[in-house]
Amino acid sequence: MITPVEVITKTRDQVPLSEEEIRFFIKGIAEEKVELHQAAAWLMAVRLQGLGQQETVWLTQAMIDSGEVVDLSSIEGIPVDKHSTGGVGDTTTLILAPIVAAAGGKVAKMSGRGLGHTGGTLDKMEAAGLKVDLSSEQFLKQVNDIGVAVISQTAKLVPADGVLYSLRDVTATIDSVPLIASSVMSKKLACGAQAILLDVKYGDGAFMTDQESARELARLMVQIGKGLGRKVKAALSSMDQPLGSAIGNALEFAQACRVLNGTETDTALARVSFQLAAELLVLAELENSPALALQRVQEIVSSGQAAEKLEELIRAQGGRPEVVSHPEKLPQAAFIKEVKANESGYLRSLAARELGVAGLKLGAGRLRKSDPIDPAVGLVLQHRVGDRVEQGDVLALIHAKDESSAREASEAVLKAVTLSTDPVEPPPDIAEWVG
Amino acid sequence: MITPVEVITKTRDQVPLSEEEIRFFIKGIAEEKVELHQAAAWLMAVRLQGLGQQETVWLTQAMIDSGEVVDLSSIEGIPVDKHSTGGVGDTTTLILAPIVAAAGGKVAKMSGRGLGHTGGTLDKMEAAGLKVDLSSEQFLKQVNDIGVAVISQTAKLVPADGVLYSLRDVTATIDSVPLIASSVMSKKLACGAQAILLDVKYGDGAFMTDQESARELARLMVQIGKGLGRKVKAALSSMDQPLGSAIGNALEFAQACRVLNGTETDTALARVSFQLAAELLVLAELENSPALALQRVQEIVSSGQAAEKLEELIRAQGGRPEVVSHPEKLPQAAFIKEVKANESGYLRSLAARELGVAGLKLGAGRLRKSDPIDPAVGLVLQHRVGDRVEQGDVLALIHAKDESSAREASEAVLKAVTLSTDPVEPPPDIAEWVG
Repeated sequence: MITPVEVITKTRDQVPLSEEEIRFFIKGIAEEKVELHQAAAWLMAVRLQGLGQQETVWLTQAMIDSGEVVDLSSIEGIPVDKHSTGGVGDTTTLILAPIVAAAGGKVAKMSGRGLGHTGGTLDKMEAAGLKVDLSSEQFLKQVNDIGVAVISQTAKLVPADGVLYSLRDVTATIDSVPLIASSVMSKKLACGAQAILLDVKYGDGAFMTDQESARELARLMVQIGKGLGRKVKAALSSMDQPLGSAIGNALEFAQACRVLNGTETDTALARVSFQLAAELLVLAELENSPALALQRVQEIVSSGQAAEKLEELIRAQGGRPEVVSHPEKLPQAAFIKEVKANESGYLRSLAARELGVAGLKLGAGRLRKSDPIDPAVGLVLQHRVGDRVEQGDVLALIHAKDESSAREASEAVLKAVTLSTDPVEPPPDIAEWVG
Repeated sequence: MITPVEVITKTRDQVPLSEEEIRFFIKGIAEEKVELHQAAAWLMAVRLQGLGQQETVWLTQAMIDSGEVVDLSSIEGIPVDKHSTGGVGDTTTLILAPIVAAAGGKVAKMSGRGLGHTGGTLDKMEAAGLKVDLSSEQFLKQVNDIGVAVISQTAKLVPADGVLYSLRDVTATIDSVPLIASSVMSKKLACGAQAILLDVKYGDGAFMTDQESARELARLMVQIGKGLGRKVKAALSSMDQPLGSAIGNALEFAQACRVLNGTETDTALARVSFQLAAELLVLAELENSPALALQRVQEIVSSGQAAEKLEELIRAQGGRPEVVSHPEKLPQAAFIKEVKANESGYLRSLAARELGVAGLKLGAGRLRKSDPIDPAVGLVLQHRVGDRVEQGDVLALIHAKDESSAREASEAVLKAVTLSTDPVEPPPDIAEWVG
C-alpha cells in the first residue's frame, strides 16, 4: 500500500516516484483523501528537489485523469491549439485561428480570461460581442462546420490542477519548472488538441525571468506533450515589450482585425502571428515546411480569406462581423490622452508587465476573477524597442473612461519606458524555437 | 506587513528570518491564522534548507510563547529537569530524581507517556500506583516539601508544537535537526526548569541514526537552552542496546528500585543514572565538580537516603512505598518464558528499537495515545553487548499475559540480537558529553 508520507519522502530525498505512486497521490488530492498540508509539503519538496522528466509526464497524465477530458474525436483532421504563458498585448490567437481555419485546419480552442497584468482571449472576444459559453455539442459542430471555435474552459477539466495551483499560490511554490509545465500542459492536453503550439514568455512579469529558464520550461512542456503522444512546438519570446501595440480588449481585437483585413502587415504582431500560424499548419500536417506554410498564410491574408473567416467566426458566436472591416465600430473610450517622452533617446525597453498593470488600472483587466472589466479602455503604444524618440514625441495613447484614470495610467507608462543614450538593437520577434 | 508567503519564501531561499517574522508565523499557526498547508510547506523548506542557530532560538521562544508556561519561581533553589529523546529500557529519571532531591536539589519534572517503541516515565509510575495528575499547586508544594515531583505535562504548554508535530508526522519532516531541537527544547523550557540535562540517543530507532548527527542535535539544543538563559548539558548514548535490562513498566520500576535499594550497583543503568545525577548536581550549583558530585551520589545511594526519597515520592503521589524494598510486590505477569540463544558467539547488538517493539507487542506500550497498556508485561535481558553467549544460554525472560504473546515476543527478541564470531568491545555507557 502506498502512503502519502512515502510519496513525500521520496521526492524530498530525490528518489524517483513510480507512475503508480504519482497516480495515487494526485488522485488522492483530487478526491480529498490526501490532506492539503501533505500536498503542500510535497509541492515544496518538488520546488526544492525537482522532479524527473518521466515523473513530470506521469504527473501531467495523472492531473488530466483527475477530471473530464474534451473528446475531439468527432472532429475531422488534426485539432490544433495554441497557448501563451502570460502575454500582454498578445492577440495572436485571434489572428492565427482564422488563418489556420481558412487553410483547412481545425482550431478547437478553449481559452481563458485575463488576470492581473495579463490579457485573456475570452475578454477580447466579448469586447466584440462574441459569446464564449457554447455547449460542447455547439463547440464541436462549429469546429467541423467552419474550422474554428474559441470558448471558455469548463471547471470540470483538471480539478487536481485547481487544488495544486491555489496551494502553490500561498506556499511559495509557483516558480517550479516541473509544476508550471505539468499545470499548463495538463490543461492544454485535457482540451483534446493533437497539435499544440506554445508561446513561452520570459523576463520581468513572466513565470521565467530569463531566456535560459524559459528554454528549460519550453523543453519540458514539449517533452510532456510528446511523451503523451501530441505534436508540440514552442516559441520563446521576451516580455521586454508587449507583442502588439494595443493593450486593452476592444483595442486588441481592433488590432487583430487590422492585421487580418490587410491594414497592418509588417508589425511584430503580424509577423509573429503569421509565423505561429505557419508552424501550426505544419504541426497539423497541412503543409510540409514552415517556409511553404508561411507563403500560404500570407496568401490567405492578402486574398481576404482570413478576414472572411474571422467574420464567419464572429457570426457563428453571435458577434458583429462588420467590425473586421470597420474596427472603429468596436467600443470606444470616452477620453484619449497622449503620453509624451520626457527626454530623448533610444527605446531600450517597454516593460510588458508594467504596461499590463497600467491597462489593469484603467479597467481593462481584473485582479480577482470576479472583478468587472471595461472593454473600451487601454493603451496603444506608438513605438517599439530600438526606436529613436525625441523629447515630446508621443509614446502611447491612453484610452480611458476619464481624465484622472488617464493621468494615472500615463505615469505608469512613463515608468515602463527605459531610454538609452546609445542605439539599441531591435530584439527578434521570436527569440528561439524549441521542439 | 509580514505575510506567510514571505516567511516561506525566505526559508525556501535560505534568507534568514527576523525574530519578528518567526513570531508572526508561529503565533499565526497557534491562532489558526496561518493555514496548515502553509505551515507544512515551511516545514519542508526547513527540512531541506535548514534554519540558522539564532533563528532556531527565536523559533523555540516563539513556540514557548504560543501557550502557557510553568511558573517555578516559588521553588527555592534551581529547579532541574532531565529529558531523554526516545529511550528504551531507560528508567534513569526514576533513579536520578530521588538522588538529586536527597542531595537538596529541586526536581520539578513534567514527563510523558510511552509511544511506539519508547517507554514513558508516567506509565512506569502508574504501574507502581502513583498518581501523575497533580494540580500545579500540589506540584509546586510537593517540590518545595520533599524536593521532587513528577507529573504529566498539561496540554496548554506549547500548543504550536502540538500543531507542528502532528504536521511533521504526516509530511515527512520529522528528521530535521532544528525542528527536533526546537520541539524538544520548547517543551522542556516551558516546564520552567533552570538547569536541564539531556540524553540524546542515536542509532536505529532514534531521531538521529549516527553519533555525528546526534552530536549536531545535542549541540543545537544546548545552544538553544543557553540562548534562552538556561544551564544545559547533553549526554550522547547509543541505541545499539537498551540502557537497562528491563523493558516494561513495572519491570523497569522494579529495576529502579533495585538500583536505589542497593541490590544493583554496577550495571550500565546504575552507572549512567549516577553520572547524570552528578551532572545535575553540578548544573544546580549543589556541587562544584562532577567527580565530587559522583562521590556524593554514591554516598546518598549507599546510605539509603535515595531509597528513602523514592519512598517519600511514592507516598506523596499516592503509591505503595513498600515496593522500593520489595519490588516483587509490583504487578507480575502470569507467564514467564525464557528466550535461548540459537547459536554461540559474542553479542554485537541488542537493537533497542526492536526490543521496544517486542515490549509493545506484549502490551507494555501503545501505538496510539488512547491505547490501554498492561503494567506487568515486558522482558528482562540477561546479557549486554560484548558478552560471550553459548547456544542454549538464556538471552532474555519474557513476562507475558499468555503463551502465544510470549512466543511472538520471543521471536522478536531473537531478531533484535546480533552475534559475532569475533570478540566485541563493550560500548561506553555514555559515548560523549556536549556542553
